[in-house]
Amino acid sequence: MSNSFVVFKKRAQKNINTMAQKAKANNLVFRPHFKTHQNIEIGKLFLKEGVSFITVSSLNMAKFFSDYGWDDITIAFPLDIGEINEIDQLAKKINLQILITNKTHLEHLSSLKNRVGVMIEIDTGYHRTGIDFKKMEEVKSLITDIYAQPNLFFMGLLSHYGNSYQSRGKEQIEGTYNRSTHRLIELQKRLAKELGSVIFLSIGDTPTTSVVTKFDGIDEIRPGNFVYYDLMQLQIGSCDISQIAAVVRCPVVDKNPKEKQLIIHGGAVHFSKEIIDIESPKSYGRVVDTSTKNWILSDSFVSSLSQEHGIVQCTDIDFEKYKIGDLIDIIPVHSCLTANLMKENTVII
Amino acid sequence: MSNSFVVFKKRAQKNINTMAQKAKANNLVFRPHFKTHQNIEIGKLFLKEGVSFITVSSLNMAKFFSDYGWDDITIAFPLDIGEINEIDQLAKKINLQILITNKTHLEHLSSLKNRVGVMIEIDTGYHRTGIDFKKMEEVKSLITDIYAQPNLFFMGLLSHYGNSYQSRGKEQIEGTYNRSTHRLIELQKRLAKELGSVIFLSIGDTPTTSVVTKFDGIDEIRPGNFVYYDLMQLQIGSCDISQIAAVVRCPVVDKNPKEKQLIIHGGAVHFSKEIIDIESPKSYGRVVDTSTKNWILSDSFVSSLSQEHGIVQCTDIDFEKYKIGDLIDIIPVHSCLTANLMKENTVII
Repeated sequence: MSNSFVVFKKRAQKNINTMAQKAKANNLVFRPHFKTHQNIEIGKLFLKEGVSFITVSSLNMAKFFSDYGWDDITIAFPLDIGEINEIDQLAKKINLQILITNKTHLEHLSSLKNRVGVMIEIDTGYHRTGIDFKKMEEVKSLITDIYAQPNLFFMGLLSHYGNSYQSRGKEQIEGTYNRSTHRLIELQKRLAKELGSVIFLSIGDTPTTSVVTKFDGIDEIRPGNFVYYDLMQLQIGSCDISQIAAVVRCPVVDKNPKEKQLIIHGGAVHFSKEIIDIESPKSYGRVVDTSTKNWILSDSFVSSLSQEHGIVQCTDIDFEKYKIGDLIDIIPVHSCLTANLMKENTVII
Repeated sequence: MSNSFVVFKKRAQKNINTMAQKAKANNLVFRPHFKTHQNIEIGKLFLKEGVSFITVSSLNMAKFFSDYGWDDITIAFPLDIGEINEIDQLAKKINLQILITNKTHLEHLSSLKNRVGVMIEIDTGYHRTGIDFKKMEEVKSLITDIYAQPNLFFMGLLSHYGNSYQSRGKEQIEGTYNRSTHRLIELQKRLAKELGSVIFLSIGDTPTTSVVTKFDGIDEIRPGNFVYYDLMQLQIGSCDISQIAAVVRCPVVDKNPKEKQLIIHGGAVHFSKEIIDIESPKSYGRVVDTSTKNWILSDSFVSSLSQEHGIVQCTDIDFEKYKIGDLIDIIPVHSCLTANLMKENTVII
């Protein structure tokens, strides 16, 4: 193994504990998104904190974790009607919740033989998927139809505040949270009037759940990225350097003195090509010194990635410090995509 | 399996045949880069054309293909000195060529017990890795040192004309080829004078090897991407639509009439986040109709990707045409990265 995705267990455990405690203090169901790590060992760190309900983003991921004993899973991705038979099979084995966003989904669910929980996705401002929070009648009609189908169990409304990724700093993140939650609760109230029942509300995203401390009116949180955090979360302001729990550790294979660059074995097939403009322009990752308890973030950054090559644009100090054959630690831009690519090269220390 | 990487075998076979014939006509060793497909079945299509020498970009990939019988492999990536023991093991089993770019590499090779072929990487203008073509003395000194080590066998100079990816159209691509080849041959001539022997020249990259027809002075080509081509190659002008041999086939999970968007199950973990600006701004892939012999490229394109979601910005016609539950075919921007992510979801038809 030449390069690896190194997870710092104590830091990850602390991140999990912090979020679990916060959920507990707010009487929230904590249903972490396992798409970030997709890793059984990391899953066990959640079990240690008493967290056994999980979220995933695909049927395949649900099957994977169910094979290892997780038996209450929400697939927080709009239903693929081509997968209904497989969903039916899985629902025989575990408590399965799926997500719908339109009437077509519901029509196809009538063939289910096993009991499946259904959530409706609500768009509270991210505008990726889900029914607009203003369209109460549409949501009500879906809920009524779910009630009418004996094998479906209505589980509530689900929203992903993904626009929090455009926020910068605590105040903006809280603003996104407040605006989105206000919209979700407004819809909930209107539905309560019509249907005579209070509907369960589930929200996701790492930035808001990391920063917000009071979750009035919310019933469940589904953050995922917080287990490792990454450069993007650092830029957004949802974590600080002490909470980063994973790096990509790459061998230096060459040095270019003219350009003050290190060439590393770490490319797009290891980092992914997610990009941000944190301080330096166009960065695919940032060099960090993890050899001390308090990590030291360097100004050296990954300026370019091809399939297997990475180019690190160095400070003078780092260019001197790292030799050919050394391993260099880099905080990835988006730990979810990196962890997915490095599934087979993950080392937990 | 909800989405898949669909390879059209006849098209891939034709691409391989075309390149193999071109190599034959020019008396070139054809050593295709297998990092693009990393697939044993596609490897067999090469064997059908009598092509058994291969290039890979990592030691792990070399091990993978050697396990399936490939026994003459070049690792076209600067040596990671931390992997020398494993290289030694592999060299016991197969004809292995490695790539060096500096003196440090060579010093560490003295511990090898098995015979290993060594190539020196030359930078002819791409400026990623390799020794500048002007630095004849440096190259000569490395060659002399290789000669002096009994277990090392000097295999020649290797260059990747990666700057061809900045070219647009046949003329510019040929310009990049001519400029780079001129530099490589100039170095070769100077070395011949000094060392009294003609040195083997190996070049890579799909754009130039696709467009150029005469390879005077070159001994080996190592293209990889040409087996599938992709949207980037189409933009560069190294292929036409009839040569594209792979698409990502994704289920439509929702439709957004207001924005004329399809939501598909196909995200950054399937496509990668490689991006280009072909006609429309910021595209991660382009919709294509593969149901007829001559594929029809649509103006609909993937405008946004998150981990599992893709958003297709549609023409009016496509928005009507595709229904929830349908499968939609998309040409990825960079087939190498996509094929790597979809290794387990590849279907050859």
